[in-house]
Amino acid sequence: MKDLSARPHAGLSFTLPGLRAAYQAGVTPAEIIAEFQARLEAVNDPGIFIHLPQHEDLIASAEALGSFDPDKPLWGMPFAVKDNIDVAGMPTTAACPAYAYQPAEDAFVVARLRASGAIPVGKTNLDQFATGLVGVRSPYPIPKNSLDPDIVPGGSSGGSGVVVGHRLLPFSLGTDTAGSGRVPAALNDIVGLKPSLGALSPRGMVPACRTLDTISVFAQSVADARAVFKAAQGYDAAAAYSRRLDYAAQSDVPLRLGVPGHASLKFFGDDAQAASFAAAVEQAADRGAEMIEIDLTPFYDVAEMLYEGAWVAERFAAIEDVYRMEPDVLHPVTRAIIGKAEELSAADAFRGIYRLAELRRECEPILEAIDMMLVPTVPTFYTLADLEDDPVTPNSNLGTYTNFVNLLDLCALAVPVQPRDDGRPGNVTLIASAGHDLRLAAGASRLFG
Amino acid sequence: MKDLSARPHAGLSFTLPGLRAAYQAGVTPAEIIAEFQARLEAVNDPGIFIHLPQHEDLIASAEALGSFDPDKPLWGMPFAVKDNIDVAGMPTTAACPAYAYQPAEDAFVVARLRASGAIPVGKTNLDQFATGLVGVRSPYPIPKNSLDPDIVPGGSSGGSGVVVGHRLLPFSLGTDTAGSGRVPAALNDIVGLKPSLGALSPRGMVPACRTLDTISVFAQSVADARAVFKAAQGYDAAAAYSRRLDYAAQSDVPLRLGVPGHASLKFFGDDAQAASFAAAVEQAADRGAEMIEIDLTPFYDVAEMLYEGAWVAERFAAIEDVYRMEPDVLHPVTRAIIGKAEELSAADAFRGIYRLAELRRECEPILEAIDMMLVPTVPTFYTLADLEDDPVTPNSNLGTYTNFVNLLDLCALAVPVQPRDDGRPGNVTLIASAGHDLRLAAGASRLFG
Repeated sequence: MKDLSARPHAGLSFTLPGLRAAYQAGVTPAEIIAEFQARLEAVNDPGIFIHLPQHEDLIASAEALGSFDPDKPLWGMPFAVKDNIDVAGMPTTAACPAYAYQPAEDAFVVARLRASGAIPVGKTNLDQFATGLVGVRSPYPIPKNSLDPDIVPGGSSGGSGVVVGHRLLPFSLGTDTAGSGRVPAALNDIVGLKPSLGALSPRGMVPACRTLDTISVFAQSVADARAVFKAAQGYDAAAAYSRRLDYAAQSDVPLRLGVPGHASLKFFGDDAQAASFAAAVEQAADRGAEMIEIDLTPFYDVAEMLYEGAWVAERFAAIEDVYRMEPDVLHPVTRAIIGKAEELSAADAFRGIYRLAELRRECEPILEAIDMMLVPTVPTFYTLADLEDDPVTPNSNLGTYTNFVNLLDLCALAVPVQPRDDGRPGNVTLIASAGHDLRLAAGASRLFG
Repeated sequence: MKDLSARPHAGLSFTLPGLRAAYQAGVTPAEIIAEFQARLEAVNDPGIFIHLPQHEDLIASAEALGSFDPDKPLWGMPFAVKDNIDVAGMPTTAACPAYAYQPAEDAFVVARLRASGAIPVGKTNLDQFATGLVGVRSPYPIPKNSLDPDIVPGGSSGGSGVVVGHRLLPFSLGTDTAGSGRVPAALNDIVGLKPSLGALSPRGMVPACRTLDTISVFAQSVADARAVFKAAQGYDAAAAYSRRLDYAAQSDVPLRLGVPGHASLKFFGDDAQAASFAAAVEQAADRGAEMIEIDLTPFYDVAEMLYEGAWVAERFAAIEDVYRMEPDVLHPVTRAIIGKAEELSAADAFRGIYRLAELRRECEPILEAIDMMLVPTVPTFYTLADLEDDPVTPNSNLGTYTNFVNLLDLCALAVPVQPRDDGRPGNVTLIASAGHDLRLAAGASRLFG
């Protein structure tokens, strides 16, 4: 244990407003980096980071910022980066050491955050190749859930979720293809923004499913996630899956909320989660939302296609070289899941694409009748022991309310709500059509802020 | 030969304005149907139609229209339908007799045209399963080019192109995935509109590549093609690939024309075609178009993916049952082309999709700098003998200026221009981004009308 007397900023809130106030009062980024390192040491979880730069290098980065620049919205803000996103000078592993490479430059989004004054402080652990929602499918030490070490940390952005869960940093970057930017938020009682596809350029991110991937943001508040999103967002002409989206004027808070009907809700026997969600729905209604009951059947049909249908072939395409040449370096669960794609033909892939087009058409009228959807983020909580018994089913169940989102080109914002009766964090996700990320933030602040 | 004295309408122009004037003067649809049958008999080409209804049934359809209805834009207009589009009461074969079925209802587009007063008069021959641009890959008698029987009729919508080429009908329906709605237009000196994907619902059409298919329109004039398009167009909620497009107000004629630079033009040694295209470019400039030289390299890279890349798997998916169970019923050239998809994996399909996304990004700045592209419709003309020598290369060459269009989600309008020096029809195609179909019509009228 360090001597707290040597930590003048031990009481400081590591949020964007907290750190900004400190900088305005004359604190230096180097002092904040030192305090971050002290807090990280106190947490004592070697599973969070796969790579941490040398202390001297981090301090040098902090000092290179010079004096406080009020025009840079993230000036001096330390952040962690999931280790499937490139940061120049740090290796990218995707939690597969044999796959590791030294990127020549920052990912587009990291470069934008750096240009806004933020300081990347390390690369976080993940379910290998971002395949999983549990956070335990990694050859590195498994990060511990920040609230209860018996519970899985969540994944695939496990380390990035845990590090913000501990309030060690104001924000971190994850990625999200199936729910990897939302499930860890629920399990660590933080905010997780899964942006519209293409809003944050995927350039410099190791692909999982290139047509469905996005970089995501974890933060301690909706306002902080929003600020990071605004700094990171921007069109990248060099990335085929970057997209022009207009976020100029999205301040209104529409209030027609689609809420799954009883038959559509799945909690796998977790009555506390059911009660928590019911309370969140009631709170939203109390704050003026109009509730519209919706049927999730076509959404669940979409979700099934992610791992059981053609899209697993995108994961296969991303790692085919490793899979064929060094299969033993893959996590056995990951290898088994992705390997299923070997049996799929190109005609199967197109049949999946047709099926998705038809299901999108079924979901369309439901989405058109609402402004946002309100769902639980996770249906229940699973322990590490549950995953040892069955490494697949609990993982699949955790994706109940997340798996359909990217396939339907929706954006989502996972937010904490009142704790459940058993003390576990309450969690809901707001979902809207692509381009409405800022509306989600406004809606979340109004309904659950 | 019929006695012309028994054909009071033998001199009538079978165009929309020609027939409408006749109807306003008291001619009946039954008389027009009879005249159509007489003209068809005179042409004496058993390869045009795969199915023609009984004379009595057609006359009954015509009589069922009752008295002239000025509110129906296509009242009494006879039209032919490519035999991969459903017409209730007529079999659909896709030029594969073993595949034939009796559709329970009209295709969405046929139903719309019928509701506008038009009368389907038969189903036309095609390259089997719409795979080909030559019109000779059919087990039925091959339709003869309407201008020169030594030249291929063009395909895959061969019969529909030839029947309008002979001026037997004011319009016909084709389909277009790779150029099947444009190449027959060039070879038969008529107009061919390849609408934006999803503008005409594909419901009731035998798929070739479902993500790239559209129904198309052949007519004798741009104005007639436009009128048919407007009657046929409309959102179809029941078709996954129908699309909401707004054609309310598109009357302006933008004039920045992208014209391929010398290095991008391919005529396969046909100097007359090169001279004809140069003259068309000059004519467009004389009529006020601003010419912008463009490089087609990324467009050609896109085109290569249609048959050499993943998309052939869409054709395979469409006929996999026939291919596996009754391979001998397939045309041998068609079977060989589509069979290549057997070797493609789902990962290959997604890699193709990624490559297309990257190439789209390369084409984007070129398309953004122009309002329309002007290209030859075909690079040259091929004879039936050329195709007997090599059934594939001439077919591929015919797609030079058509194959990239659907993959890039563009619309196109093939129009006749001044005859070439050797008397063959001059031909160009205007191309624009999706949703600008009516602008193409306006541009064609202004530049080449």
